[in-house]
Amino acid sequence: MTRLNTYHLPTECWPEEQGLVRLDGPEARHLLGVLRARTGETVRLFDGFGHHGLFELVSSTGKASAEFRCLTQGVEPAPTRGVALALGWNKSSRRDWLLEKGVELGALGICFWQAARSQGAMPVEPKPSWREKCIQAGKQCQSAWLPALRVVPGGVEGLLRIAPEYDRCYLLYEVAESGALLDPVRLAAGRSLVVLGPEGGLEQREAARLADAGFILAGLGPRPLRWETAALSCLALAHHALLSS
Amino acid sequence: MTRLNTYHLPTECWPEEQGLVRLDGPEARHLLGVLRARTGETVRLFDGFGHHGLFELVSSTGKASAEFRCLTQGVEPAPTRGVALALGWNKSSRRDWLLEKGVELGALGICFWQAARSQGAMPVEPKPSWREKCIQAGKQCQSAWLPALRVVPGGVEGLLRIAPEYDRCYLLYEVAESGALLDPVRLAAGRSLVVLGPEGGLEQREAARLADAGFILAGLGPRPLRWETAALSCLALAHHALLSS
Repeated sequence: MTRLNTYHLPTECWPEEQGLVRLDGPEARHLLGVLRARTGETVRLFDGFGHHGLFELVSSTGKASAEFRCLTQGVEPAPTRGVALALGWNKSSRRDWLLEKGVELGALGICFWQAARSQGAMPVEPKPSWREKCIQAGKQCQSAWLPALRVVPGGVEGLLRIAPEYDRCYLLYEVAESGALLDPVRLAAGRSLVVLGPEGGLEQREAARLADAGFILAGLGPRPLRWETAALSCLALAHHALLSS
Repeated sequence: MTRLNTYHLPTECWPEEQGLVRLDGPEARHLLGVLRARTGETVRLFDGFGHHGLFELVSSTGKASAEFRCLTQGVEPAPTRGVALALGWNKSSRRDWLLEKGVELGALGICFWQAARSQGAMPVEPKPSWREKCIQAGKQCQSAWLPALRVVPGGVEGLLRIAPEYDRCYLLYEVAESGALLDPVRLAAGRSLVVLGPEGGLEQREAARLADAGFILAGLGPRPLRWETAALSCLALAHHALLSS
């Protein structure tokens, strides 16, 4: 089974019905310049907000712009269950990698927050390169939705402000043998926010503040896991639980 | 809670009882040259085959050799349950990364096998750098056992030769919606071998041969996952199921 090549078409360019659409910029250059697509070829387009469809290339202008006719299109409803990760900001070389895995494993969102032990200053808004990374991952795994990216200022108080958007909020805490194990079934029962500290972990007062506010403390066992391993384990467990239920 | 620094002491150097041991080479240079450990300090030593203990530095020779007195030591029995991955050989830049995650998530073993669609030739034996990567990961997550590393020649026939070492053998297959979802509880019920193809996937005849030989076909859902995402999801699911049972 050959997979169709997928390209990203921003939501605002999406055709109302069976209309024509234009693909410009790097996406068009890849299609026309690298893959040398010809008139009549079919590609898959998606916007990362549920729109996806099959489109036929009807014309091109040089290697910079392609015009498509819509063959079929659909809208996948926004996911109502799953995990959004709130990751303590890090100077991590593994951030891009984690964004990619978040797309593959169907994260609802990836938030960054500035923890007391965060290294470096978090940007004031998500970097365009993060979104681009997600788009590239979405093309590969053919998801219709991409994780919502955000930066949450204000430390734990910022997390408390976004908590009401979720059905359940968890604090993934590196607790010794005694800690409660994260329950994937509960995690996938609704919209869950899972907070992780930065690489140096949370300060006690940060953890206490979240626990006092009703965040569920849970862990992934007695073994210390790296930041990105813990994050990815959450996503893999929720992904599997969503498919099982 | 401060974690003790951990160093790797090969099994053949391990003291019989409360004896003295000598640590040489890069491990000693790190301890003495980088961390500037002083006589009287306590470190944790492990061999990756179950031995671990606390040791006191009693003397050093320059920055190349350290002598320790054993304070306490124990032997963790070999794990009787868990997952060994058999990964189709790839020219993957993510191999080292996957070895690290295998250690963190307690893989019994990581095997590589030469599939029809493998890119490049697999080495005839595990590279020393793979073991070194596992040792470094083991120091970080404080596991007493490291995954057994091996290369399995002979394609799918090679996999059939090692299959009797395991309680259950799985073929993780990219099946569409219809496929059975991998069951983490069963996976963690004994020693499981999980075969993954290389990045290009398995050929139909390879999959058929394994299925005919009784390998259980299972998937991780309809969404195509990258090679290393599928591998890591298996490990995360098994790790969690082991802790839950």
